[in-house]
Amino acid sequence: MSLKFSHETLGQRVLFGTKQASQYLIAEIMRLEAQNVMVIASNSGLFSAQEIAADIDVKVWHSNVKMHVPMETAIEARAIAVDNDIDVIVSVGGGSAVGLAKAIALTTSIPIIAIPTTYAGSEATNVWGITESARKTTGVDNKVVPTTVIYDSSLTMSLPVEMSVASGLNGMAHCIDSLWAPHADPINALMAAEGIRALSAGLPKIVADPQDISGRDEVLYGAYFAAVSFASAGSGLHHKICHVLGGTFNLPHAQTHATVLPYVLAFNAPFAPDAEQRTAAAFGTDTALEGLQKLRAQVGAPQRLSDYGFTEEGIPEAVSIILEKLPAHNPREITEENLTALLVAALNGNDPATLN
Amino acid sequence: MSLKFSHETLGQRVLFGTKQASQYLIAEIMRLEAQNVMVIASNSGLFSAQEIAADIDVKVWHSNVKMHVPMETAIEARAIAVDNDIDVIVSVGGGSAVGLAKAIALTTSIPIIAIPTTYAGSEATNVWGITESARKTTGVDNKVVPTTVIYDSSLTMSLPVEMSVASGLNGMAHCIDSLWAPHADPINALMAAEGIRALSAGLPKIVADPQDISGRDEVLYGAYFAAVSFASAGSGLHHKICHVLGGTFNLPHAQTHATVLPYVLAFNAPFAPDAEQRTAAAFGTDTALEGLQKLRAQVGAPQRLSDYGFTEEGIPEAVSIILEKLPAHNPREITEENLTALLVAALNGNDPATLN
Repeated sequence: MSLKFSHETLGQRVLFGTKQASQYLIAEIMRLEAQNVMVIASNSGLFSAQEIAADIDVKVWHSNVKMHVPMETAIEARAIAVDNDIDVIVSVGGGSAVGLAKAIALTTSIPIIAIPTTYAGSEATNVWGITESARKTTGVDNKVVPTTVIYDSSLTMSLPVEMSVASGLNGMAHCIDSLWAPHADPINALMAAEGIRALSAGLPKIVADPQDISGRDEVLYGAYFAAVSFASAGSGLHHKICHVLGGTFNLPHAQTHATVLPYVLAFNAPFAPDAEQRTAAAFGTDTALEGLQKLRAQVGAPQRLSDYGFTEEGIPEAVSIILEKLPAHNPREITEENLTALLVAALNGNDPATLN
Repeated sequence: MSLKFSHETLGQRVLFGTKQASQYLIAEIMRLEAQNVMVIASNSGLFSAQEIAADIDVKVWHSNVKMHVPMETAIEARAIAVDNDIDVIVSVGGGSAVGLAKAIALTTSIPIIAIPTTYAGSEATNVWGITESARKTTGVDNKVVPTTVIYDSSLTMSLPVEMSVASGLNGMAHCIDSLWAPHADPINALMAAEGIRALSAGLPKIVADPQDISGRDEVLYGAYFAAVSFASAGSGLHHKICHVLGGTFNLPHAQTHATVLPYVLAFNAPFAPDAEQRTAAAFGTDTALEGLQKLRAQVGAPQRLSDYGFTEEGIPEAVSIILEKLPAHNPREITEENLTALLVAALNGNDPATLN
């Protein structure tokens, strides 16, 4: 058998260390010879940002940060960056802060130092998004990849356990779905497996003790791999399903991902032996599903879509929309019948193994 | 325990597929919108290069390629590239061809598409080298990282078995030594372990059947990871030793690496439990040394440095030079005594396990 794939590796410097953000930031500002620094942080992240940036000269503090990057905030921030001759943007926060930084970089090519405080993962991708008239436009451009990411797990300590679990399981979905996504490849699968391993090791530690730094470290490290593998592989079946459930039926994002994942895994795994074997090995269990279900039990993951407002009546419409958006190269042929069975099982919280 | 590391990922597109080089090259030339293409290939690689580039417009064919990139060849090639408004350089060949392409990129920032025909690995690194007055100057610059690498194992079919084994074991040394090199980190260790796995799976297949495409594929794939992990982690103890044996005692490069590696592994492994465990897992054996020795037996690797002109008289001088060049952070403290024991064992082909 011969190997055939294409893989794009995004160039980026990753600095990882708890309570190291300030030191790393000073060193990076020097390395990049930055003169005019703009720090982007939402009001809620401003205190962290001020602590981290205490020892550098900041020319502009910018905190007009909104979810999904509304166009007017992008235009405002770009103008501020240009007017102030900004040569490095430092974003501190979750997806919205780095999202705004990316919107500036898209038109100005100003380098970004991203300091994430959640597991959203945007800091490791070349995907940008801007919302105009309630429509989000997304695109891919290597100009928006942060030059440097500083991962400091002490900044995630205040992330509540429930949100840590939801966000960590969302990362798990990125890893697993990337194994059969349209641009899946062996380099990517290696990253995804490391993400699965780290997330499954770390999440139960956070649940057992929210102040456990090694658990926070492992989940942050796993979230990096989740972002890298998803960015490269694209959306597989799991993400197509969750996108429809969220977009058309307004189900909550994190809970939908956490609930649907074992059903997609059980559905695809028998037809994707390499993904099954890698995932099981990463979990350290006999089967991939066993590993995922063990983790879900340990962290008290959501059980059924009916708990979040989905109903049996919605299934035919969901199936028909999903069938129009099927990802390329799913390992198992998807039919109206087997997709309906998947959604019925996820709706009611039935044993996913029945889908094999 | 908390995790602390820095890692630099080099941005690069990897296209992998046997007999795909021509198709991949056409697609990349289009993607990069290149108008004026310069192809660099040594005379021995010219036939391959002409076949690969048969369907693209080539403005300049350049074959003045020499080992170690003499400065005069770099100056000549740079002038040709500038005079012809070259916007993409395609290198076909081993380290010398891509080395010349890098020398051009260093001063012109012209993007490189590298098509390697050996396992040298330079195509995946940011290291350049130019030789002037018999002295090689090397440096690191992200401008010289090829934009795209096209790996086509059909181009390695003519690489003799003996050279394939020597070069593959050299890659293995890159992987293993990177696990304790000065800039070792977990992202890097992940790559190194994948390289160990692929090289150990592929090399015996090439020995058993030089035309086995799956063996050629696996070794080429492993060589990519060897290059990536070594470029990021830097030179560990193994490379410091081999550099002295090659530079001062003029021992042959590939054979020296292949001979010394099990001794350095046996020397360091008890003090580097993570490296030991990852390496053993990658080999699929109980211990790392067992895996390496099994592979070395399968491929008929060289046994002792005395076969290559090294003598007991040389050991004190070698030890004293190596002690001056010790890498940072070696897991085991290195003394005159234990380094002498290592070299005595490697000289005579003694059982490396005695060094534990």
